[in-house]
Amino acid sequence: MVIDLNADLGEGFGIWTLGDDVALLDVVTSANVACGFHAGDPVTIRRTCAAAVDRGVSIGAQVSYRDLAHFGRREMDVEPEELCAEVLYQLAAVDGIARAMGGRVSYVKPHGALYNRICRDPAQAAAVVDAVADYDPSLPILTLPGSAVHAAAAAEGVSTVTEAFADRAYTPAGALVPRREPGAVLHDVEAVSARAVRMAVEGTVTAADGGTVEVRARSICVHGDTPGAVRMARAVRDGLLEAGVVLQAFA
Amino acid sequence: MVIDLNADLGEGFGIWTLGDDVALLDVVTSANVACGFHAGDPVTIRRTCAAAVDRGVSIGAQVSYRDLAHFGRREMDVEPEELCAEVLYQLAAVDGIARAMGGRVSYVKPHGALYNRICRDPAQAAAVVDAVADYDPSLPILTLPGSAVHAAAAAEGVSTVTEAFADRAYTPAGALVPRREPGAVLHDVEAVSARAVRMAVEGTVTAADGGTVEVRARSICVHGDTPGAVRMARAVRDGLLEAGVVLQAFA
Amino acid sequence: MVIDLNADLGEGFGIWTLGDDVALLDVVTSANVACGFHAGDPVTIRRTCAAAVDRGVSIGAQVSYRDLAHFGRREMDVEPEELCAEVLYQLAAVDGIARAMGGRVSYVKPHGALYNRICRDPAQAAAVVDAVADYDPSLPILTLPGSAVHAAAAAEGVSTVTEAFADRAYTPAGALVPRREPGAVLHDVEAVSARAVRMAVEGTVTAADGGTVEVRARSICVHGDTPGAVRMARAVRDGLLEAGVVLQAFA
Amino acid sequence: MVIDLNADLGEGFGIWTLGDDVALLDVVTSANVACGFHAGDPVTIRRTCAAAVDRGVSIGAQVSYRDLAHFGRREMDVEPEELCAEVLYQLAAVDGIARAMGGRVSYVKPHGALYNRICRDPAQAAAVVDAVADYDPSLPILTLPGSAVHAAAAAEGVSTVTEAFADRAYTPAGALVPRREPGAVLHDVEAVSARAVRMAVEGTVTAADGGTVEVRARSICVHGDTPGAVRMARAVRDGLLEAGVVLQAFA
Repeated sequence: MVIDLNADLGEGFGIWTLGDDVALLDVVTSANVACGFHAGDPVTIRRTCAAAVDRGVSIGAQVSYRDLAHFGRREMDVEPEELCAEVLYQLAAVDGIARAMGGRVSYVKPHGALYNRICRDPAQAAAVVDAVADYDPSLPILTLPGSAVHAAAAAEGVSTVTEAFADRAYTPAGALVPRREPGAVLHDVEAVSARAVRMAVEGTVTAADGGTVEVRARSICVHGDTPGAVRMARAVRDGLLEAGVVLQAFA
Repeated sequence: MVIDLNADLGEGFGIWTLGDDVALLDVVTSANVACGFHAGDPVTIRRTCAAAVDRGVSIGAQVSYRDLAHFGRREMDVEPEELCAEVLYQLAAVDGIARAMGGRVSYVKPHGALYNRICRDPAQAAAVVDAVADYDPSLPILTLPGSAVHAAAAAEGVSTVTEAFADRAYTPAGALVPRREPGAVLHDVEAVSARAVRMAVEGTVTAADGGTVEVRARSICVHGDTPGAVRMARAVRDGLLEAGVVLQAFA
Repeated sequence: MVIDLNADLGEGFGIWTLGDDVALLDVVTSANVACGFHAGDPVTIRRTCAAAVDRGVSIGAQVSYRDLAHFGRREMDVEPEELCAEVLYQLAAVDGIARAMGGRVSYVKPHGALYNRICRDPAQAAAVVDAVADYDPSLPILTLPGSAVHAAAAAEGVSTVTEAFADRAYTPAGALVPRREPGAVLHDVEAVSARAVRMAVEGTVTAADGGTVEVRARSICVHGDTPGAVRMARAVRDGLLEAGVVLQAFA
Repeated sequence: MVIDLNADLGEGFGIWTLGDDVALLDVVTSANVACGFHAGDPVTIRRTCAAAVDRGVSIGAQVSYRDLAHFGRREMDVEPEELCAEVLYQLAAVDGIARAMGGRVSYVKPHGALYNRICRDPAQAAAVVDAVADYDPSLPILTLPGSAVHAAAAAEGVSTVTEAFADRAYTPAGALVPRREPGAVLHDVEAVSARAVRMAVEGTVTAADGGTVEVRARSICVHGDTPGAVRMARAVRDGLLEAGVVLQAFA
C-alpha cells in the first residue's frame, strides 16, 4: 500500500501566477515542474525546484508543446524530429536547473494536449520517448495505462509509470470519461478522498455505471489551481495517510 | 603558437536561417551554439551540436537575453536573479542536447547586448557568472579582457578565456573601436588574415593610430553570416595554418 | 471639477489573469487596454473592449515594449524606427478590435518601462509620438506632466493629457517619489481618497515634506491588481462623487 | 482576360529575412503581407506596406495561427472564439499600418495550416469569416474554390475570391495534388508560365491524368522564397502579358 501523489507546479509565467505551489508542495510527493513551453519561466523553475528539493519532493519535467498563448492545451501536428528536440530541450533545461538546486529530474510527465495526443498517436509518442531515451533512458514517463506512449516506451526500453485521477469519472472499460460529458469531474471532497483510498488500497474504482473497474496506478494526480483544489488535494493526502497508505514518490 | 577560432552557429529559428553553418564548422575549432533565447530552435540546436560533434569542434553555449524579436541585440535591465536563471536554463538546455549527441558544452559565450553589457555592468556580470558556477564551475567564459565579467568570474573561481577580433579596429588602449565609428570594421581579406596571424604569433595588433598594442587572446572570433564572411573566415584559418599556428580549441 | 479615473485592464495572457477587470470597469471612466506586447491576448482584448463599450468606459491603447516575459517592466534600447512600428502595430490592433465591438481607441497610454523611458528619452518619446501621429494625430497621449513625451508631442501637434497618482508620494518639486524609497506608496484608503479629492478640487497635493504642491491633472490613475487595490479604487471614486466632482473621461 | 498575381511578402522576422520582397513587388498585383503571427515584425510590415503603396500593389492581410516557431505550418485546434479574435487582431494591425502608409488592406488571405484547415473545417472557417465580417464585411477572402470557407463566407455575406496555382498539379476533380505525392509541384519555368496563361485565357488546366479541368480563378499565386521562384514568377508575369492578359488586382 504505497502511492505517489503528483501535481503540476511552477505553472506561472513572468508576472502571472497559477495555483498555490507552496501549499501543494506540502501535499504531494512528486512535482511536475513546467519547463517553459506552456508555462514556467526560468526564475519560477528555479524557485520551484529549490522548494521541491527542500521538502524532499521528487521533481518531474512537465514537457509540453510550445504554446504559451494557450497553455499547451491545443493539439499540434508537430513533426516527430521537432517534437523530439523540443522535449529534449525542455527536459535538459529543467534537469540542469534542478541539479544546480541540489536535486535532479527523476521522471517525465507530458502536459495537456501533448499528454492526450501521445496516448493515441504512435509517431508523437515515439518522438517523446526518443527524447527521454536520448537524454537518460532510466527516466520513467508518467502517463495513463494502455496508451500509445506505453507501447513506444516499451519498444525503446524506457519505463512508464501509470497514474490515476481520483476526481475523474471512469468508464466501465477503465478509461477517463471525457471532460465535456456531465459528471466527468467530481467535486465532492470526501467522495474524492475515499476514491483515492480505494485506488491505493484495492486498486479499483467505481465506474460511471456503478460497476467496479481495476485502476492499477503507482501515482494519483491532484490539482492546485484553485483554493478548492488545494483543499481537495489535502483531503486526498489525509485520507490516504489515515488509511495507512504510505505516500512515497515512485522515482 | 596555439589559437582557437570561434564563431556563432545555429542562429536560425524555425524556417529562418542565418549564415552558413556547414561551411563555418570546417573553419572553426569552437562553435558558439545559440540557445533559443535570441535564436536557435531545438531542432537547429540538435543538428548543430551533432555536426560539431562529428567534426570534433568544441561546443559553447551562446547564452543571450530573451529577445527573438531583436536577436538579443538590445540591452535590457534584467534583474540579476532573473538573468541568472535565464542563463542557467539556456546553458542546461544546450548542454543536455549536446550530451545526447555525444558531446557536451565546454564553455559559455554570452551573446550580443548581453556580451557588451557584462563587460561593464558588475551586477549582470555576476548574474551570468553565478549561473555558470551553479551549473558547472569548470566551464570557462569566453569574453573580452579587462571587463567586469572577468572580475566577477575571478571572484567566484570561474575561469575566463579572452578572445580577439581580427576584423575590428583597436584603440591605442587595446579596446575595440565602436562599430559606429568609421573604420571600425575591416573588410580586406588579406589584411584581416595577416592581423589574425600577428595576433596569434606575436600577441599584438596595429591600433587605429598606427601604434602597436598587445592583444593576448586564446581565441579569435570569425563570422559567417554572409558569403564574404565565410571567405574571410577561411582566409584567417588558412593564414594561421600557413604561419605554423596550431588551431586548437581552448576547452 | 471634472476628473477622469483611469486603470490598466485586460492584462492577462492566455490562461493567466491579473486583477479584477469587471470590478474596475465599474469604477473607472477610462480603460487602458493591454495590446498584446506586455499582456493581453486577442480574446482578452476583445472581451475587455466589449465590456468597456457596454459600460460607456473610454478605451485607451496601453502600448508597451515587446516583453511578455517581464510584463513590459524592463527598459529596452529599441531603435526609434522599431519602436514606432511596434507602437503603431499595437495601437491599430486594439483600435480595430474596439471598433468591431462598437467603440474605438480614444487615447494612448504607454505602459511600464516605456512610460518611464519616454518621460526622459527624447528619441523614444518621438518614436511613440510619431506612431500616434501616423495613426491618428487626434489621439491624446496620457502621461506625466513636464516629460520628454510632452515636448515631443507638442512638436508634432499631438495633444497630451496629464495624470496624477493619489496613492503615490510627491516630492516638493511635484515629481513622484521613486518606488524604492520608504513611504513612496500610500496604503491608507481614506487618506488616498482624500488626496484624490484634493487633487480634483484644488489641484494640489501634500508633498513628502509636508508642503503643498500643484498637481494639475485631468485624470487620476487607480489600480486593480489586488483585492485591496479594488477597494481603494472604489474609495477614490466614492470620495470624488461625494465631493461633487464629476467623473468624466477626457477623450 | 484579367488576372491578379498574388504572393506572400514580408515574411521575415527581426534579423531573419525570407524571399526577395523587392523583386516580387515588381511582379505581383497583390501582396499578402504577413501579420506577425507566423512571420512579420512591425518594422517589416511597415516597410512592406510602404513599398506596396509606392508601386500600386494591392495589400492583403496574410492572417495565420500564432506560430512563429513553425511558420504557421502546423494545424492547431484553436477554439473558434480565440481564432476569431486572433484573426481580427492581425487584420486590424496590418490595416492600421497600411493606412498610416497611405494604403489599406483590401483583402484577407489565410496562411499555411490555417489556409488548409478552413478549406475543410466549418467551425474554424466560420471563425475566420466572423473576424472579417466584424472588421469590414466588404473585404474579400482569397482562397481555394469549393471549400468550407466559401460556404461560411456566403452564409455571412462576405465575398470570396478564388486563386489557382500554376506550379501545382491538379487532380481530375480540379483539386490540388497533395505536396507529398510525386509530381505535385512543377519546376519547369516555361511549362508553368504556359499553364498560367491557359488558366487566365481559357480557365482550364491539364490535370495529372492528362485530361482538362476547369480552373476559374481571379488570381494566380506565385512564390518568391528562392531565386528560382522569383525567376518563375517573372516568367509567369511575362507570359501573361505577352498573351494579352491584363494584370490587375481584384480588390
